Amino acid sequence: MEQRLSFVTLAVRDVGRSRAFYVDGLGWSPELDVPGEVLMFMAGEQLVLSLWDRAAFEVELGAPALDGDGVVPMTLSHNVVSPREVREVLDLARSASAPVWGPVEREWGGFTGYFADPDGFRWEVAWNPGPIGLRAVPDTDVDARP
Amino acid sequence: MEQRLSFVTLAVRDVGRSRAFYVDGLGWSPELDVPGEVLMFMAGEQLVLSLWDRAAFEVELGAPALDGDGVVPMTLSHNVVSPREVREVLDLARSASAPVWGPVEREWGGFTGYFADPDGFRWEVAWNPGPIGLRAVPDTDVDARP
Repeated sequence: MEQRLSFVTLAVRDVGRSRAFYVDGLGWSPELDVPGEVLMFMAGEQLVLSLWDRAAFEVELGAPALDGDGVVPMTLSHNVVSPREVREVLDLARSASAPVWGPVEREWGGFTGYFADPDGFRWEVAWNPGPIGLRAVPDTDVDARP
Repeated sequence: MEQRLSFVTLAVRDVGRSRAFYVDGLGWSPELDVPGEVLMFMAGEQLVLSLWDRAAFEVELGAPALDGDGVVPMTLSHNVVSPREVREVLDLARSASAPVWGPVEREWGGFTGYFADPDGFRWEVAWNPGPIGLRAVPDTDVDARP
């Protein structure tokens, strides 16, 4: 098995509401856009972020999605190359009506905050100056680091 | 905001158990390995898959993780370039003691199945011959398609 992640699929309650947030709010451009069913974005070299109607998701998986109080036990991160950019992306999310937490300095040396998408999926916005953080941003961005 | 996903972080109950599955079972090589705390894998050009101790996750997020019956409302996918490879990866997961569902032919033209990791996160193993599927596998793999 190659060590590759190809798609990340989020089960969402209202694809139209997700579209308003990701496309109109964050400014992303969909690669595939089937109203009411699915919305797919290229989110890396060979990586697709897919937002899929939750009812269809539950039919294919054969089980109800976890629900209730609390956060989904995973996060998606958007890494940037400066603390300033962390603030800028969180401000963008806030202007798109997303709840925002932080940003704060982390004990491991980074500067990160979170926003929640319309289904409550938490996105981390992170400046991570460590080796693993540099592996997670495009080379052109790394070259441009101050 | 650039259209990029940098990290996918899964909150896991036992990092050692996750390590046994991903490293010993699936054969992945960690980029960062802090026993009991976190395990990180490169999973794409600028993409990190992180498995993080759930207690630490809940402290940082400030909320309990969703729990109970049902599946986490998201999937991770590993895309391959032939139906045969779908079977091979699912067989590997099965040999690592993962529950497996499928594979089956999908109405949209693909051939996919799922396995669950030790925390129940569902991985889809997919052959997707459509345009978006070809965007999600490395070019070298696409060139090699039969």
